[in-house]
Amino acid sequence: MIEPQRTPAGSVLKVSAHSNPNSVAGALAGVLRERAAAELQAIGAGATNQAVKAIAIARTYLQHSEFDIVCIPEFTDVIVDGKERTAMRLLVERRPARLQTTVN
Amino acid sequence: MIEPQRTPAGSVLKVSAHSNPNSVAGALAGVLRERAAAELQAIGAGATNQAVKAIAIARTYLQHSEFDIVCIPEFTDVIVDGKERTAMRLLVERRPARLQTTVN
Repeated sequence: MIEPQRTPAGSVLKVSAHSNPNSVAGALAGVLRERAAAELQAIGAGATNQAVKAIAIARTYLQHSEFDIVCIPEFTDVIVDGKERTAMRLLVERRPARLQTTVN
Repeated sequence: MIEPQRTPAGSVLKVSAHSNPNSVAGALAGVLRERAAAELQAIGAGATNQAVKAIAIARTYLQHSEFDIVCIPEFTDVIVDGKERTAMRLLVERRPARLQTTVN
């Protein structure tokens, strides 16, 4: 099964449970300074946790830029060593301003 | 230490490693049908993973609504049993349309 490329991504950052969140955050922030979006891909709870931490850290790296970032998670099937696995795809996009939403 | 309420949230959904992502997704989608934003709070890798899965599932529950949802992760300090822990706060917000970003 070929992974559907719903978001044709030139920069898919694959994150593992052993990835350093600061390093992933640096790479992610670098991509987002150049492009409107990036994509993280994680398989398993440990990897997903590192990916989410990386996004939180990248937000701090980008706090003085003109944009904030948001994340859109979705499931996707990927082939790893010939076996189909369910991965978490985290599309990370710029958004123009740091909008503050008040929850009532 | 009192947790700063940067996003005054009437609906903080606390997610644990044992939470059912489908149940959390149902609660999250329910909140977001009524309000512009909701907040998930997770401590630890297992809990964060369940929270992210819940957001991905909630997106499918809301796919026929007029809005998509995005997630903004950040670290926050919380007190659990008298001890300070670092939690992941996942602010989940509506956004008007399903914007598709192309990554170049």
